[in-house]
Amino acid sequence: MKIVIVGASGTMGSYLSTCFEKDHDVIRVGRRTEDIQVEVTSPESIETMYKKIGAFDALVCTAGPTYVGPWKNLTDQEFRQGVEGKMMGQINLVLIGQHYINPRGSFTLITGALTHEPQKNFANASAANAAVEGFVRAAAIELENGIRINAVSPNVIENSPRYFPFFPGEMPTTMKQLEYGFRKSVFGANTGHVIRLY
Amino acid sequence: MKIVIVGASGTMGSYLSTCFEKDHDVIRVGRRTEDIQVEVTSPESIETMYKKIGAFDALVCTAGPTYVGPWKNLTDQEFRQGVEGKMMGQINLVLIGQHYINPRGSFTLITGALTHEPQKNFANASAANAAVEGFVRAAAIELENGIRINAVSPNVIENSPRYFPFFPGEMPTTMKQLEYGFRKSVFGANTGHVIRLY
Ligand SMILES: NC(=O)c1ccc[n+]([C@@H]2O[C@H](COP(=O)([O-])OP(=O)(O)OC[C@H]3O[C@@H](n4cnc5c(N)ncnc54)[C@H](OP(=O)(O)O)[C@@H]3O)[C@@H](O)[C@H]2O)c1
Ligand SMILES: NC(=O)c1ccc[n+]([C@@H]2O[C@H](COP(=O)([O-])OP(=O)(O)OC[C@H]3O[C@@H](n4cnc5c(N)ncnc54)[C@H](OP(=O)(O)O)[C@@H]3O)[C@@H](O)[C@H]2O)c1
Repeated sequence: MKIVIVGASGTMGSYLSTCFEKDHDVIRVGRRTEDIQVEVTSPESIETMYKKIGAFDALVCTAGPTYVGPWKNLTDQEFRQGVEGKMMGQINLVLIGQHYINPRGSFTLITGALTHEPQKNFANASAANAAVEGFVRAAAIELENGIRINAVSPNVIENSPRYFPFFPGEMPTTMKQLEYGFRKSVFGANTGHVIRLY
Repeated sequence: MKIVIVGASGTMGSYLSTCFEKDHDVIRVGRRTEDIQVEVTSPESIETMYKKIGAFDALVCTAGPTYVGPWKNLTDQEFRQGVEGKMMGQINLVLIGQHYINPRGSFTLITGALTHEPQKNFANASAANAAVEGFVRAAAIELENGIRINAVSPNVIENSPRYFPFFPGEMPTTMKQLEYGFRKSVFGANTGHVIRLY
């Protein structure tokens, strides 16, 4: 299977790339490094990326920038980081990518526990995650040719200890759980699901 | 209680204004008509609106424009209607309004059943609704001075028969249920809730 991983230079993306490379043809996509580059806030850049890649079977996205910081600094401007990045970046990967993906292919987007379990400083991610989850449910009933779409929603992950202080009492999602969540979406048959790993 | 109703010229807003006017000081806000005008896609216009209104106790919003139309026409551009309108319009009403609202005041935003029960042609609303609901949960743990925030999520409403064909098998939410949903948020004590009317 030809699997595109957007965000492959990141904590999750590099781990998942290594996992999937054992049995599949993985195209690692990063912002500045990796096999191919993309800036997800630009629909033109996304279109160029898909043109370079050609037909593929699965798109996995772990690129989802958001604003993290005190509520008192949060205005429309800071909020745009998550709106343009994690939300519209991932939505445009699907709206554009549906014209390049093979029949019976799949899109797997990244969200997170913040959708339902908010934490201080992360309101932008809560909104962006939730938007992506609402979009995934809606896109599942619109996509044609057997193309599927799901979201994976981990809690803070074990390989991101710098975030632990912001998630008091939250049991970190293990990298193994993360891998299995993405496996379930890419190799399973479901669509429109939010795969909760917490 | 001084209650600001944004979207007061609409189906829901005009109904709710009439209900609440019996016992409260209602400021009707519309886009082009009503006591005061606002364009919710503009943070500057929102700021001007709050300056005109002065201190208040409750903000109710039923203004939430989104793109409705076939999936095949849906690109980043159409998607912006819901992003700028229903999502960022309502989020900015809160981010800016928190500096004008009285202590122990409340914000009540509008979402809808499409968050969890998608329908064809409405992916933009599913994403915008979900974003607002994620934001409401997060804002509830950040707002100070006892300020509360909730969302009301109706199904297609009985006074909108033109939408019935798009919602097969969905029992319309009655206007009475709608009124009670908003009453629960404005006059109750909860915060961070999505009040589902279906
Ligand atoms: N880490 C956690 O504990 C955790 C838990 C739940 C959910 N999440 C979510 O999961 C996602 C990934 O987390 P992570 O820890 O793997 O993040 P990360 O290590 O920061 O990696 C993010 C990846 O996305 C890429 N990226 C960022 N902005 C981009 C843009 N505008 N265009 C294209 N690529 C871009 C980065 O490229 P560069 O290397 O060039 O920056 C990197 O490859 C985030 O959305 C995060 O909110 C994380
Ligand atoms: N109707 C339903 O069955 C139903 C069910 C569930 C959820 N919803 C949601 O509930 C909300 C209200 O529905 P409705 O049927 O009452 O809608 P509506 O009759 O179309 O009224 C919308 C109101 O919002 C105002 N508005 C629209 N765009 C605006 C903008 N950019 N800036 C400021 N004000 C703006 C309109 O002003 P103008 O009069 O100047 O246009 C009007 O007052 C929508 O978000 C809708 O998605 C509706």
